[in-house]
Amino acid sequence: MGLFTKDIKSMEDLYLHVLQDIYYAEKQILKALPEMIEKATNRELTAAFKSHLAETEKQVSRLEQAFTLINEEPKGTSCPAIDGIIDEANELAGEIEDKAVLDAALLAAAQAVEHYEITRYGTLIAWSAELNRDAVSRLLNTTLNEEKAADKKLSAIGEKKVNLKATG
Amino acid sequence: MGLFTKDIKSMEDLYLHVLQDIYYAEKQILKALPEMIEKATNRELTAAFKSHLAETEKQVSRLEQAFTLINEEPKGTSCPAIDGIIDEANELAGEIEDKAVLDAALLAAAQAVEHYEITRYGTLIAWSAELNRDAVSRLLNTTLNEEKAADKKLSAIGEKKVNLKATG
Repeated sequence: MGLFTKDIKSMEDLYLHVLQDIYYAEKQILKALPEMIEKATNRELTAAFKSHLAETEKQVSRLEQAFTLINEEPKGTSCPAIDGIIDEANELAGEIEDKAVLDAALLAAAQAVEHYEITRYGTLIAWSAELNRDAVSRLLNTTLNEEKAADKKLSAIGEKKVNLKATG
Repeated sequence: MGLFTKDIKSMEDLYLHVLQDIYYAEKQILKALPEMIEKATNRELTAAFKSHLAETEKQVSRLEQAFTLINEEPKGTSCPAIDGIIDEANELAGEIEDKAVLDAALLAAAQAVEHYEITRYGTLIAWSAELNRDAVSRLLNTTLNEEKAADKKLSAIGEKKVNLKATG
């Protein structure tokens, strides 16, 4: 997008921009997850990250279908938000040696990522309704439900295992 | 925090770090909201932003009480995540001229902020339980419920007004 120009003129433009934003975000998450899997030690947490990696690959493919449905080429746009969330996670992880504390930090970072995705997909689904993009809405709803389930699973792991281990 | 040092050694250190992170984030939100209020045109959206500004002031004060309860001085730490979320909102807003489209973008940005807060407070509340910090937990729970309510209110405004106006 050009600086100092007003490139977003309609809801359709804004919709495309946010679709590109979340497409970029999902691809950054695909890059970040293998390192998180490597750093995590709690088995349930590692398993959750691995299963989310497989899920994210499907979510990227659903986004590509969404682009096709609105007659656009799949393309990303810079997303300072996800970059900030991932940078923060990396900075924090670099400061932690204790494995249980690191697990707790990784889990919190993953939940911050989930919540970013939840809000963006929620927004796109709301706009899909207004723009009568029902087929896209259904695709994104499948992903939204996966993100919400992933967030809940992480909360459950955190409550049962990671925190207890780190504080006990 | 020093680079290349492992400054976070315990769950208590991690807890303090995340408390400082959300304290910085809330203060950045306090700075960002007046501009969002100025840019928004939909009355319900403007009113929601104004009421969230007042709420955020109380949330900052609750965080200061939380610091006191764990015998720490209120202090922020850099938070690339919230900086990224706010930068992204500003960049996007700068590209939009149409008022209804701008309202939709501002609403989406505010929801991204809410979700960041929801995940951070959720994490701190989970860790409070493990560290037996019940009084802090109660304080943060009040804030978490406000954030969730603010997010729902924004969704309702979006569904009824902003999107309809932008697409109709």
